[in-house]
Amino acid sequence: MQDKSMLMIPGPTPVPESVLLSLSKHPIGHRSGDFSEIMAAVTAGLKWLHQTTNDVLILAASGTGAMEAGIINFLSAGDRVLVGCNGKFGDRWGEVCDAYGLKTERITAPWGQPLNPDDFKAALEADTAKTIKAVIITHSETSTGVINDLEAINRHVKAHGQALIIVDAVTSLGAVSVPIDEWGLDVVGSGSQKGYMIPPGLAFVSVSPKAWEAYKTATLPKFYLDLGKYRKDAAKNTTPFTPPVNLFFALKTALEMMQAEGLENIFARHQRLMQATRAAMKALNLPLYAPDHCASPAITAVAPQGVEAEKIRSLMKKRFDIALAGGQDHLKGQIFRVGHLGFVSDRDILAAISALEAVLGELGYSNFSPGAGVATASRVLTTT
Amino acid sequence: MQDKSMLMIPGPTPVPESVLLSLSKHPIGHRSGDFSEIMAAVTAGLKWLHQTTNDVLILAASGTGAMEAGIINFLSAGDRVLVGCNGKFGDRWGEVCDAYGLKTERITAPWGQPLNPDDFKAALEADTAKTIKAVIITHSETSTGVINDLEAINRHVKAHGQALIIVDAVTSLGAVSVPIDEWGLDVVGSGSQKGYMIPPGLAFVSVSPKAWEAYKTATLPKFYLDLGKYRKDAAKNTTPFTPPVNLFFALKTALEMMQAEGLENIFARHQRLMQATRAAMKALNLPLYAPDHCASPAITAVAPQGVEAEKIRSLMKKRFDIALAGGQDHLKGQIFRVGHLGFVSDRDILAAISALEAVLGELGYSNFSPGAGVATASRVLTTT
Repeated sequence: MQDKSMLMIPGPTPVPESVLLSLSKHPIGHRSGDFSEIMAAVTAGLKWLHQTTNDVLILAASGTGAMEAGIINFLSAGDRVLVGCNGKFGDRWGEVCDAYGLKTERITAPWGQPLNPDDFKAALEADTAKTIKAVIITHSETSTGVINDLEAINRHVKAHGQALIIVDAVTSLGAVSVPIDEWGLDVVGSGSQKGYMIPPGLAFVSVSPKAWEAYKTATLPKFYLDLGKYRKDAAKNTTPFTPPVNLFFALKTALEMMQAEGLENIFARHQRLMQATRAAMKALNLPLYAPDHCASPAITAVAPQGVEAEKIRSLMKKRFDIALAGGQDHLKGQIFRVGHLGFVSDRDILAAISALEAVLGELGYSNFSPGAGVATASRVLTTT
Repeated sequence: MQDKSMLMIPGPTPVPESVLLSLSKHPIGHRSGDFSEIMAAVTAGLKWLHQTTNDVLILAASGTGAMEAGIINFLSAGDRVLVGCNGKFGDRWGEVCDAYGLKTERITAPWGQPLNPDDFKAALEADTAKTIKAVIITHSETSTGVINDLEAINRHVKAHGQALIIVDAVTSLGAVSVPIDEWGLDVVGSGSQKGYMIPPGLAFVSVSPKAWEAYKTATLPKFYLDLGKYRKDAAKNTTPFTPPVNLFFALKTALEMMQAEGLENIFARHQRLMQATRAAMKALNLPLYAPDHCASPAITAVAPQGVEAEKIRSLMKKRFDIALAGGQDHLKGQIFRVGHLGFVSDRDILAAISALEAVLGELGYSNFSPGAGVATASRVLTTT
């Protein structure tokens, strides 16, 4: 049915009507007082969302652009870095480090499992010469639905004392608390089409004073992704390069909506959506790909048995206009992923689970009692 | 007056209503068949606009991001490059080259004057050892309203035989013919908020087979701006990183409008707008910053005497909601710039010149006959 699509993928996520309407305003000049007012407002809103007084810089890029900037601005060729790899995005940050000639050491865990903080502890404690310059962690691993224990890993980085902690919070910011100042996170990257409830096209990087110290001596080449240029201009409420002004309009509206809802309510809502989704999958006897103790509040990956993941995705789209994500890389065909990130309500979860039950039945999967998934989701949503 | 602003700056440029409405459609998943159809359509449209069968790749970035990609993908540290510098943007590409450790040789002309093709001829002919790897030229220099003689400079690059020609066409593409295949332009960068009639946030790079050959051995580090990744995915009508899908909707609409108008009509319109604007300024005895023979069809810079440029800009905005651009860097306060690029009609020029006459009068500038500017513009518009 035309215009009836429902996004339950981990980005782009659903966008509120008021944000969509903000997008269609006529652009304004980016060197105008009017734009500076918007820049000031969204920067204040971003600092609120990031729970920080650090700089939060805005780039025209995807989340990958933000993360690359977050890495290359603070390091030099040959620098030793630890990269946590337990999914597609952790692997990607390792590739970025390799591309820039860093001495990249990967700390791995199987896809679907969390990184082990003790592995970081061991590597960092062994580094008595303090040669490790940065530890790069994906907080919520979008490819698997695993959330890594950033707080614990970061404690070991703090105990090391020298290394920067650089965090991919692309699908965690806005879904779960990322208390940058409280934890002392140096660099945190994220993207607009996730918890921010706006379309893709903007990316964000928060930078601590300690990271800015490292910037002074970092020598990797950069220009468009040179965060020093963004910081200098942000201080004057402007940008070094022409910003996507319409996405700024949208960001302002979305941040106002988020502030009206409140951080605690936003985080509680994501917890509730995640718990309802996971409980429903269990009631439908569909194995969850990530264990409960490391489940991302943004996305739930399911590894169905007795029914093909891609057939479920295809029929969900065809019959009910619901877009689910598939598996990436070697997980293609093995899992499907339900995004419950950003502008997603309890009603969306009930609709998705109900539709999933119908699709499972149509595909001949019989290992569940019809209604069991939606009844379970409903109970969790009303009691959590 | 609210919502009555008129952009006559060289970007963001005015955006048609249908393009604005495309922007506010709900995003779709970027790994969907629906998105691939859009990607295929806009890629075909871009090739039409670029007059090329070369790859035309789409990045989430500003024009600077596109130009940096266009430089760093095809070169290695220490490579010798010639950079044409006669304004802010030529200077910027020199800075990009410096940032990446290229052996940068600047061929300069004063701001407001065109680059001299003979200077390039001399440098290229002297290079019998063929050590020059690339020549980097800004076609329309946005900071001064000068258009450089790309065709002549490119002829000398072709005679050299080895060097790539890398072109900033940010404010020329869509305003004047840039026949990429006919001239054999290797790399051409541009941005969405200019001739494309859509808001900022997308950037474009066309790449020739010769440039792809150079890509194979180029070693400057890159990841987000690695054009090889974009080419690989574009072949499958997708993108390596999450694209700004709403800006793609807008791009599709805008390209359809441009195709309906036709390339020759678009170029003729920009010529007419430029000639009317320049003739009007002469009738008002306001000195043009760039000579006639190198006047950009996208932007006219004016260096008023007897009245302050910034006062004109300020009163144009306050009294008539018309945004003009100021001078950049050392030209601040010396010039104002009238953008006539993209979605600009004859009526807009008449409105702007009429308003300018009113403002000049209000500021006490008396070196013109009231009505002379608009009468001249009107005559040019109706006879060109």
